[in-house]
Amino acid sequence: MGTFHKRPFPLDRIRRYLEPGPIVLVSSAWKGKTNIMTMGWHMMLQFTPALFGCYIWEGNHSFEMLRKSKQCVINLPTVDLVNEVVAIGNSTGSKIDKFKKFNLTPLPATKVDAPLTKECYANFECRLYDASQISKHGLFIWEVVKAHVATTPKYPKTLHYRGEGVFMLSGRSLNLRRKFKPQNL
Amino acid sequence: MGTFHKRPFPLDRIRRYLEPGPIVLVSSAWKGKTNIMTMGWHMMLQFTPALFGCYIWEGNHSFEMLRKSKQCVINLPTVDLVNEVVAIGNSTGSKIDKFKKFNLTPLPATKVDAPLTKECYANFECRLYDASQISKHGLFIWEVVKAHVATTPKYPKTLHYRGEGVFMLSGRSLNLRRKFKPQNL
Repeated sequence: MGTFHKRPFPLDRIRRYLEPGPIVLVSSAWKGKTNIMTMGWHMMLQFTPALFGCYIWEGNHSFEMLRKSKQCVINLPTVDLVNEVVAIGNSTGSKIDKFKKFNLTPLPATKVDAPLTKECYANFECRLYDASQISKHGLFIWEVVKAHVATTPKYPKTLHYRGEGVFMLSGRSLNLRRKFKPQNL
Repeated sequence: MGTFHKRPFPLDRIRRYLEPGPIVLVSSAWKGKTNIMTMGWHMMLQFTPALFGCYIWEGNHSFEMLRKSKQCVINLPTVDLVNEVVAIGNSTGSKIDKFKKFNLTPLPATKVDAPLTKECYANFECRLYDASQISKHGLFIWEVVKAHVATTPKYPKTLHYRGEGVFMLSGRSLNLRRKFKPQNL
């Protein structure tokens, strides 16, 4: 696993990492216990404040921890963590400590109690912004309140899930900045 | 541009194409006019019925067309359409017919009035399922009622937007099916 040197990142630019649709790891803390889950159903909702929506199935052990603590960290794993990503998705935090089991390092966050996952490329600390769609759609709407992003590489190699056990790996970048109207960047 | 032979695709498996987070083109029809826009903020919300959420800025010409018609088609472009994707994002349907301007072919859908975009790899016909989050979050929650997907290639080469004019292109596939618990596929 890579070791990343991270620094604070502007919240209004986190779409760089989330809009492409990567699999993320959601970490949580509640009543002295932590947990982490694999998640792929999410979207950006606003630049400022930085809003981010994600679907969590009520059957997940994390569901009540997230709903009650009203906090989480969205962690961005790179392809070298693919085995951990799958193993985390295969297991439940009701029976094991997934950080210990999968040799991941929980680090203290700055604005929430949920832990950062050291081995991930980026960590986004979130507070629950709108709980109104949880019961109807399983939709948690978070405000990202602090972002920690690795200084290098500029673009991480991320995992994108297609279902049925198949991941798409992020490929090359194409910079078409000169073709965009400035207001549409 | 490629010409795709498409056939109906099971609605409970459309996450294969949408969960990886591609840029899509949203087509609409209202009062005899059609429009199309570029969109990257979206997520799967449910398998059955197939629910899909997307953010549309109220300043977009499509916003009122979508809100009033309560229908759309989500079209999945491949990388060969990148110039059209950018040009569509740069222009507004209030002034031009984007299908004509960008040489895209609108085809009749089966269950909605909004047109399919022939040149795209896949088309997902949608009806508005929940309008309650439009005014608060710009969030349209759609039910996908019909899917048309190209028979080949199995996985399309898609565009994923990072902001600032930079796209990530989808890369290779990694099949880890044997590592998944069946219920977690």
